[in-house]
Amino acid sequence: MERSAAGALVAARAATVAADIDRAFDALLAVPDDPRHRLYEAMRHAAIGGGKRLRPLLVQATCDLFNISRESALRVGLAIECIHVYSLVHDDLPAMDDDDMRRGKPTVHKAFDEASAILAGDCLHDLAFEILADEQTHPDAFVRIDLVKALAVASGPVGMAGGQMMDLEAEKARFDLATVTRLQNLKTGALIGFCVDAAAIMARIPVEARTGLHGYARDIGLAFQIADDLLDVEGDAALAGKALGKDAAAGKETFVSLLGVDRAREQGRLLVEQAKAHLHGHGAEADLLRAIADYIVERDR
Amino acid sequence: MERSAAGALVAARAATVAADIDRAFDALLAVPDDPRHRLYEAMRHAAIGGGKRLRPLLVQATCDLFNISRESALRVGLAIECIHVYSLVHDDLPAMDDDDMRRGKPTVHKAFDEASAILAGDCLHDLAFEILADEQTHPDAFVRIDLVKALAVASGPVGMAGGQMMDLEAEKARFDLATVTRLQNLKTGALIGFCVDAAAIMARIPVEARTGLHGYARDIGLAFQIADDLLDVEGDAALAGKALGKDAAAGKETFVSLLGVDRAREQGRLLVEQAKAHLHGHGAEADLLRAIADYIVERDR
Repeated sequence: MERSAAGALVAARAATVAADIDRAFDALLAVPDDPRHRLYEAMRHAAIGGGKRLRPLLVQATCDLFNISRESALRVGLAIECIHVYSLVHDDLPAMDDDDMRRGKPTVHKAFDEASAILAGDCLHDLAFEILADEQTHPDAFVRIDLVKALAVASGPVGMAGGQMMDLEAEKARFDLATVTRLQNLKTGALIGFCVDAAAIMARIPVEARTGLHGYARDIGLAFQIADDLLDVEGDAALAGKALGKDAAAGKETFVSLLGVDRAREQGRLLVEQAKAHLHGHGAEADLLRAIADYIVERDR
Repeated sequence: MERSAAGALVAARAATVAADIDRAFDALLAVPDDPRHRLYEAMRHAAIGGGKRLRPLLVQATCDLFNISRESALRVGLAIECIHVYSLVHDDLPAMDDDDMRRGKPTVHKAFDEASAILAGDCLHDLAFEILADEQTHPDAFVRIDLVKALAVASGPVGMAGGQMMDLEAEKARFDLATVTRLQNLKTGALIGFCVDAAAIMARIPVEARTGLHGYARDIGLAFQIADDLLDVEGDAALAGKALGKDAAAGKETFVSLLGVDRAREQGRLLVEQAKAHLHGHGAEADLLRAIADYIVERDR
């Protein structure tokens, strides 16, 4: 698939998904008329309007393979976005990455205050599990409990949060390529892996039959991070809606610092081809997954 | 039941529960030999050794009514303790209550750093749901999914975290007795309510038959908070293992500031009698629940 075709396919579905996610957050996060209003306003600031909504899109694209209902795909995507957004809110805190801008807006602790940001993140964290546990997400309780367990693992110390801890340590140590790869497999890879795994869980595909999907997810996860590292040195901060060049300033090793720009870009392309090769058993129903893989290294923000 | 008898019954079971909880955390939180070790060390610092483990004890006491297995009761208690401990770690942060000591030890951000404290809290938060979702907790997936959903609600914006947000606002506003009661019903009451609700969920008691238990939980939750407010003005900081007198210094209204010491103590005793009255339909199997109610207003830390 050539560049523009992939981009157009992704853009069309992404716009629908983004609108659906915003609408769902708007309904879930009605601001109460009591002293908790600031908490809900902070959650809304973090969750509504903005973001590529790549993870919910990835859930929908994988659900296309298995004829899972749009409603189930949307609610699982919403739960994952709750985790993703909560992690951004906490990562942006002064004690963590200390970022002032996110998605072209002030970060939550800037627009509100640190305490509200910590609590808003904590509440979005809870909301993810509340959404997954609700029968609106999927009629089968066995499926829902598997989703809850897989998400708790993907977001915790052996997944996203463990990767974030490694990222904090990266400022003190000099990580080699193997360690940076492991860091990124945890920090961004675990949640991306859950996006495709969630569709397989809902389709009750046995774990041993998910190897191709897991390979796809691992490859696009790394390609996504390489693209992020490239944008961090070459990108446009206005388009990105956040500060760039921060890794180099912090003395952190990245795929780009370890491989150089050209080899990193080449590695990203290679991973995308490898990701698509994992989908060889599928026909047109996997076109959106293929287009997402292409989009990941083409994007400019 | 007279003072010493209640205290002795609670103390005997509490010591067993505390040892079981520490042993379970020790096994779950083995420190890995990689750059995430600091995260696990921070989680262990927060979770192991110390605390009254009142919530896991309350789960066990309620499970006594329904012949729920000790293993299920312990694992649910462990999940609740994960939530309780994560909330203490985040509440102690400089941006929140800014506490240096907790359970006689430096708080996590003091012993480690703020970033580690934020992440350790986030990981304990995930661990709670991972524990509940696992079949070791209960063989029935319907029970596990109900536990997950009820805990997510009890810890989120309509429960504990919502109460913490109200508590932060309490420094700016002048809350009346009704608002302080609502704040405490959320901040400490929601999770205490989940302790008894979890046992009823495991016993598959219909919601409409849980009125007595819910009344018991609500009453001891408020009695617990009144006792805490009394300890905050009259207690021994060395015994408490944390700073006292902070509410008055921050200009926050409490049950004691609004009612005065004598009426607050009287109200605490009244709530305990009321809590025990909710158990009238039960015999000796509810003795531990009765003893916990008595203990809550008798305790010196």
